[in-house]
Amino acid sequence: MNYKIDNLQYCKWSREVFQINRDAGLDAVHVTVVYHEDYDEFLERINEWSNHFKENSDLIFLGNSYKDIEKAKVEKKTAIFFGFQNCSPIEDDIALIEKVHNHGCRFMQLTYNNQSLLATGCYEKNDSGVTNFGREAIKEMNRVGIVIDMSHSAEKSTFDAIEISEKPIAITHANPIFWHNAKRNKSEDLLKALAESNGMLGLSLYAHHLKDSTNCTLESFCEMTARTAEIMGVKNIGIGSDLCLNQPDNVVEWMRNGTWAKTKNFGEGSKTKAGFPQQPDWFIDARGFKNLEIGLKKVGFNDKDTNDILGNNWFNFYKGIN
Amino acid sequence: MNYKIDNLQYCKWSREVFQINRDAGLDAVHVTVVYHEDYDEFLERINEWSNHFKENSDLIFLGNSYKDIEKAKVEKKTAIFFGFQNCSPIEDDIALIEKVHNHGCRFMQLTYNNQSLLATGCYEKNDSGVTNFGREAIKEMNRVGIVIDMSHSAEKSTFDAIEISEKPIAITHANPIFWHNAKRNKSEDLLKALAESNGMLGLSLYAHHLKDSTNCTLESFCEMTARTAEIMGVKNIGIGSDLCLNQPDNVVEWMRNGTWAKTKNFGEGSKTKAGFPQQPDWFIDARGFKNLEIGLKKVGFNDKDTNDILGNNWFNFYKGIN
Repeated sequence: MNYKIDNLQYCKWSREVFQINRDAGLDAVHVTVVYHEDYDEFLERINEWSNHFKENSDLIFLGNSYKDIEKAKVEKKTAIFFGFQNCSPIEDDIALIEKVHNHGCRFMQLTYNNQSLLATGCYEKNDSGVTNFGREAIKEMNRVGIVIDMSHSAEKSTFDAIEISEKPIAITHANPIFWHNAKRNKSEDLLKALAESNGMLGLSLYAHHLKDSTNCTLESFCEMTARTAEIMGVKNIGIGSDLCLNQPDNVVEWMRNGTWAKTKNFGEGSKTKAGFPQQPDWFIDARGFKNLEIGLKKVGFNDKDTNDILGNNWFNFYKGIN
Repeated sequence: MNYKIDNLQYCKWSREVFQINRDAGLDAVHVTVVYHEDYDEFLERINEWSNHFKENSDLIFLGNSYKDIEKAKVEKKTAIFFGFQNCSPIEDDIALIEKVHNHGCRFMQLTYNNQSLLATGCYEKNDSGVTNFGREAIKEMNRVGIVIDMSHSAEKSTFDAIEISEKPIAITHANPIFWHNAKRNKSEDLLKALAESNGMLGLSLYAHHLKDSTNCTLESFCEMTARTAEIMGVKNIGIGSDLCLNQPDNVVEWMRNGTWAKTKNFGEGSKTKAGFPQQPDWFIDARGFKNLEIGLKKVGFNDKDTNDILGNNWFNFYKGIN
């Protein structure tokens, strides 16, 4: 059995998007439900998702474990797994970790670019690693079954998280620095440590993480995937597209700035390119998985490895969450 | 005119305590209104203080600027200045800084022992300094008139705050490491940098910050003061007693643990000495200012210097806040 999984999307959710994901054959999607929201605001997002599930029950349902990916395959639906891009919903309260898990959270980033109470983000000047509260939070996330996601974290913090966590961690959406040197991408040493601990890297299709941005070629992306497989082993690689379909530009402004600054920060963009970047034409939405399949085979991956990268590796990783 | 100021107390507030502070001749007290509270909980504390002001209007009133210290002197009352021991009330929102100022906040610690969103606390293993949000917050605190207090912060973070802040900062309650080597106490280099930037050190009377703890002698404390004056200049020293009169031991447990850990942390105490430590017998409450006066003169301070340390230096510092 082969599964197709996109392990990071933050679209403006609608029936149209759920239909696209079905057309792409996705059995599971890890969706971002929270950026900077606190616990009460997270509950509002959960209510919105309840409506999505009610109104689109022929296309999606809430996923709690890998068994729901198997179920989705059988029922020809997409299992939706909740995740946070920041730890803001747990505020300063360790007890909220179990509560957000009860509401379906299965992935949580310890940081989003800036310093959090748990660890340092990749946009800070200095990285002090996982904090006192961070150590406690990792222990509790391991216990209840929430994956530690370090996509937007700084390097020492990520090494710390790999070491402290008793379960494999994930970098759900990022690419290697050797291919494109961006603050959000990851070093070879880090990717090796991630793989040695059985962690997963979700390769990103977000233009700011791609060599040549929107003009990145499918061939270049797939060659990067082959080189990454040499470094990490093919079993530790999946897709985390970081698709932000239909989101208006004020959302990326909020993602970058939250409420912490009076001046505007442009993150991976710039003053003249402040909005969401355009997707490369071979991956304008999840239906681009079909192009990835062709491209991966073209650079030498066999059928099995291609299927593993496009979903089976994530499926196996989900088996270990709970 | 001489003013008497205790620039840090966190007592269980009652008429009895306000009366003791009056008996001690205190013209102003900087009181901790918040440890780990968020913005809504801060508003609850403000409500409680409104009641204190109503019920004890013959003894206390809310202080907003140094002019209220002059007024308190004339009216034989104590001006109460609000402060936070953690930055939790501003949550992740720069706009809340102006709001807490409007409610009377005049001092805010960037951290309380652990990492915060703004800086690193003195109980963390690594110190990455003032964060991105921290830089923005300091700018905004400078603008509205809230003093940056680094009493519970780590060393690099404190050096950073001194450098970044356009106004002098304060360490409202701590002692020098040369006298008593505790995580909460400060190095000579740091004290020098603080003094060079016209910042203030409030010497603490809390047993865990004292040489020989509860058994610390008045003579030893005053000799330390003299040595500190040699390092910093007499103008940059005041008192921040850290008095926690009548607080039950579950409060110190909450101060240390907040809600961030499932295991218990004992901070400056230990498993067998988990509660509030006893005060030295020459400073069981603010009436000990009289003993300080005698002690300081005994180690060689003249009348003027003694009065400056016991309040005038803080008074002058308050002049620069707004």
